Amino acid sequence: MNDKQVKEITSRNKDFAQWYTDVVKKADLVDYSSVKGSMIIRPYGYAIWENMQNILDKEFKKTGHENVQMPMFIPESLLQVEKDHVKGFAPEVAWVTHGGNNKLEERMCIRPTSETLFCDHFKRIISSYRDLPLLYNQWCTIVRWEKTTRPFLRSREILWQEGHTMHESKEEAMKETLKMLKIYEDFQKNILAIPVFTGKKTEKEKFAGAEATYAIEAMMYDGVALQNATSHYFGQGFSKAFDIKFLNKDNKLENPYQTSWGCTTRMIGALVMVHGDDRGLVLPPRIAPFKVIIIPIGSDKKIDDALKEITEDLKDSSITYKIDNSNKTPGFKFSLAEVKGYPIRIEIGKKDLENDCATIVRRDTLEKVKVPVSEVVIKVNELLINIQNDMYERALKRRNSMIYYPDTYDEMKNIAKNKSGFIYTNWCGNESCENKIKDELGLKSRCIPFEEAAPTGNKKCICCGKKAETKIYWAKQY
Amino acid sequence: MNDKQVKEITSRNKDFAQWYTDVVKKADLVDYSSVKGSMIIRPYGYAIWENMQNILDKEFKKTGHENVQMPMFIPESLLQVEKDHVKGFAPEVAWVTHGGNNKLEERMCIRPTSETLFCDHFKRIISSYRDLPLLYNQWCTIVRWEKTTRPFLRSREILWQEGHTMHESKEEAMKETLKMLKIYEDFQKNILAIPVFTGKKTEKEKFAGAEATYAIEAMMYDGVALQNATSHYFGQGFSKAFDIKFLNKDNKLENPYQTSWGCTTRMIGALVMVHGDDRGLVLPPRIAPFKVIIIPIGSDKKIDDALKEITEDLKDSSITYKIDNSNKTPGFKFSLAEVKGYPIRIEIGKKDLENDCATIVRRDTLEKVKVPVSEVVIKVNELLINIQNDMYERALKRRNSMIYYPDTYDEMKNIAKNKSGFIYTNWCGNESCENKIKDELGLKSRCIPFEEAAPTGNKKCICCGKKAETKIYWAKQY
Repeated sequence: MNDKQVKEITSRNKDFAQWYTDVVKKADLVDYSSVKGSMIIRPYGYAIWENMQNILDKEFKKTGHENVQMPMFIPESLLQVEKDHVKGFAPEVAWVTHGGNNKLEERMCIRPTSETLFCDHFKRIISSYRDLPLLYNQWCTIVRWEKTTRPFLRSREILWQEGHTMHESKEEAMKETLKMLKIYEDFQKNILAIPVFTGKKTEKEKFAGAEATYAIEAMMYDGVALQNATSHYFGQGFSKAFDIKFLNKDNKLENPYQTSWGCTTRMIGALVMVHGDDRGLVLPPRIAPFKVIIIPIGSDKKIDDALKEITEDLKDSSITYKIDNSNKTPGFKFSLAEVKGYPIRIEIGKKDLENDCATIVRRDTLEKVKVPVSEVVIKVNELLINIQNDMYERALKRRNSMIYYPDTYDEMKNIAKNKSGFIYTNWCGNESCENKIKDELGLKSRCIPFEEAAPTGNKKCICCGKKAETKIYWAKQY
Repeated sequence: MNDKQVKEITSRNKDFAQWYTDVVKKADLVDYSSVKGSMIIRPYGYAIWENMQNILDKEFKKTGHENVQMPMFIPESLLQVEKDHVKGFAPEVAWVTHGGNNKLEERMCIRPTSETLFCDHFKRIISSYRDLPLLYNQWCTIVRWEKTTRPFLRSREILWQEGHTMHESKEEAMKETLKMLKIYEDFQKNILAIPVFTGKKTEKEKFAGAEATYAIEAMMYDGVALQNATSHYFGQGFSKAFDIKFLNKDNKLENPYQTSWGCTTRMIGALVMVHGDDRGLVLPPRIAPFKVIIIPIGSDKKIDDALKEITEDLKDSSITYKIDNSNKTPGFKFSLAEVKGYPIRIEIGKKDLENDCATIVRRDTLEKVKVPVSEVVIKVNELLINIQNDMYERALKRRNSMIYYPDTYDEMKNIAKNKSGFIYTNWCGNESCENKIKDELGLKSRCIPFEEAAPTGNKKCICCGKKAETKIYWAKQY
């Protein structure tokens, strides 16, 4: 990569799709591969995913979940056990038909999700209420045969985690469903600095086989929605289809109550599209693989000494950092540091050192400040907290400025045509209106929020004018 | 699981294969699935794998390696680029032929290993010596269509890590190959308490596409060998086939020098077969998910107080533990603790508490000792170190007692027929003798050790009697 290439990022306001592609490529998050529809996650991108995994995995374990590993294959007959489920997934699975030179007796798909595999296992290991709750999670790759793909957002191979739990009562399963949704919500807010709406999906948009699906919905810079994680309440649907039974406390056989919940590398795409700018990636400190990039300008004893002092202080504070010692020009290094979105850049140069100072640059605001070498890490610590908070507040403010509240269908139409963002309206709850809004305005229902969901104003459906049942968010989606 | 089932482990000396199956099932490491040839790794088994991953991943990162994620599919044409490689792997891959309802234009296999994918990527990102070395690693699942499978040892789906590195000189690549082999060797010895032989594989046994393969070879309780990790030097074979070139320091285009290295969940199988006994699993403390199992016998204030004191001390010492509070009998709990191989069991009972004591039991020797409650964790800390060391020394002594040094082919034949273990002989280096020994004695070459490999005694090949080139180990293998 040369200086020109670093700077050759399409403007975000000119062509958002091209800007996104430029950033994920130039920040070295991904590379395209010779395998159609599959991407390569490069070290910098994968390090972000590892951070996500570590943080979430700790939360899952803290709440009593255990990791397991199921097969990656699902025999066709197993996929077909739950009828809604197979209908939803069969059209988009990859089929394995041959092992070596031999045709398989029964073809198998590569898991698009693992409910059927977990249920097959649960049937063998659940017999009493003493076996419940079973709180399992799996980190793995799934495959969905998408026709058009985009790095992180829509891919044939998806790295994800899928939680699968079994409970002795409906109440306990529902509590679990919402508890995990809350973990996702907190993770988005506190770690990724992404504000989200949480709520229930409509019947039309729920997971194939679920009784209810809950989601967290984020708004990207271009106003388009990204569903960032989901949590499903299955009731007894799968456990009846798979004939899973347990002896309950009243000594009666009963089908257990089930949940599943998941999130994927798609969250990396959200990071890019919520926080990035025309110079490239901007990473919130809490998820950045390196919180600091250090750029020594030139090399002499004074610079080396300052570098040593600063890196030792960073180590003492457990702040991750990287030093750019390449043979490029300082200008190139600054550009590259911006493309890669390190939260803080420290420049160590001769001129500053005459005053025993180094320059610290915030990636999010590009503000510069000169600080005595011995106080650099104190300042870095302070800035890391500020950057994390400011990034969230900025994203929240921007998102809130792009939510619209029309009273009539004409107003809604007008907004859909001329603005980007979320639209919040009354809705009758009927799929016919949902379909009409999708067909005519290109908007999909996002979620019915937990709070403030009671109809307001004229209390009529924005589309058909009949009595509204609820409030709901609409938006274009990735 | 009831008391009887726990105890229903086949004797190791009576039927080793059945004993192995009993232990991996009853210790809750795996469950069989409805997917032929694939197993389910249950939480207890997966926690062992997570420990292995965490420890090795730290070593890989400490030595400069970065994690990446390649596609899981390999288009048929890409698999075919390196000729030896495709010949070795094509017969045992799973083929994806359909995506949803559509037949693929080109079928793709699920990666049996990822050299071709990495090379395809390396070609795009390597152009100068400044891009080297490239030190990559990947944690993922691979697929090999095995006909007969056994949990952890031979499976259609294998969880593993594969390192792939590129270097500017042969020397540097060879150094990397051996450095990673050493990391595996140290891991086996210091963490898994498994003694291994390290050395070079023969031409016949090397990896398809490698110039040289190095391996660590462990001996199981039944004397059969398990190849526990491999490290390959590829030279320029793949980089020439894939036309990967870099501008070297002399400003000339050159093909880089490559390595790859890997280890799998097979190591869990090795743990079982090296350390297990007729009561079940025996885990070395450093790899055990829980170092201590606590069994309160009954429940009253005194027991609860002792339990509280001990668990707080364990937490302070960062010793992982589990409490068995189930409604089973103490006898059942003791048996289950033994089946699962927790290194140390603490029994807290009324009688002991009259003397303010608890009972500590070592899983490896079953030795019991009564210790004042306040000193339990001091004793546990001491025992954990002793158990780890003793397990290694015991395994080493046993292995060394099962190595045979015949001088003639007749002697070798006799040993192969009547004994189990490794056989160490002179060898001429010709594949014809290697084939004869395999066909007639059922033994495969294991490795040519780095040290003491010069022929000894009559310095003639054990098989053909011609001049020997080296010493070599032979054994039956898993």
